[in-house]
Amino acid sequence: MEELELSGAFGTSASLALRLGQTVFSSSSLLIMCLDVGFYSYTAFCYLVTVMGLVIPWSITLLVVDAYSVFIRHLPVQRRLIIIIFFGDMILSCLSLAAACSTASIADLLREAGGSHCPSKLCERYQMSAAMAFLSWFLSSVSFLFNFWLFSTL
Amino acid sequence: MEELELSGAFGTSASLALRLGQTVFSSSSLLIMCLDVGFYSYTAFCYLVTVMGLVIPWSITLLVVDAYSVFIRHLPVQRRLIIIIFFGDMILSCLSLAAACSTASIADLLREAGGSHCPSKLCERYQMSAAMAFLSWFLSSVSFLFNFWLFSTL
Repeated sequence: MEELELSGAFGTSASLALRLGQTVFSSSSLLIMCLDVGFYSYTAFCYLVTVMGLVIPWSITLLVVDAYSVFIRHLPVQRRLIIIIFFGDMILSCLSLAAACSTASIADLLREAGGSHCPSKLCERYQMSAAMAFLSWFLSSVSFLFNFWLFSTL
Repeated sequence: MEELELSGAFGTSASLALRLGQTVFSSSSLLIMCLDVGFYSYTAFCYLVTVMGLVIPWSITLLVVDAYSVFIRHLPVQRRLIIIIFFGDMILSCLSLAAACSTASIADLLREAGGSHCPSKLCERYQMSAAMAFLSWFLSSVSFLFNFWLFSTL
């Protein structure tokens, strides 16, 4: 079997960098939203926290697998594995885009409403959390595209 | 050159059906949001209207091209054309998911706030518009996946 190597797809150092970025951005989005903030009063914020709670373990798992493949022993590219990875990336990137957009729009509405709805420090945190979620979405959609490409050439 | 035919990708009858669905859902989302509704008081609703204003001409153009290819004369699959189509589908599906999520979250917030913010009939229309935008997003992401697959095998 021919050994396929596509930079950015599963098991390469570019993929490792993408997973690292996803882990960092999704964790910071979750932390900014959760720490000392009553996020559970808005559905969209709860949704963001839930989605980030799914993205973080997924990214960390694939970060570990990629690191193993890059630094210790090169793992062979299996069709079944790539299917699982690209499906997971597809679903999680859609969910994180949805969460980021909902959070951003609610934060924007609260900021416009002003006053007691949204003290300025809190609003900035909501926006920052949404921005981190957008970055996490961007990196996971890049991962998805590379893995989908790899899958279609297998 | 080998003639590729991938059901759902550019120039097939499945693609024609997908484009028809996109046109119908995006138009109805726009109409439900615009007719008799002061949508310009919320950023998210303006964004939905803008995005649907981009999705509708794109869907109609590709609907016409697909119809031509299916009913009149089969168009050859060109790599450059498929790049344009899959890029367009990718960007528009991201934008329409973002618009649908923002609209849905704002509609939900307004419904919870209740009272003068959102008379029940108006809120239902916002939600219906968001639902149509979600359907339009789903169909355009399916188109994107098929065209990306076709592109990667060219």
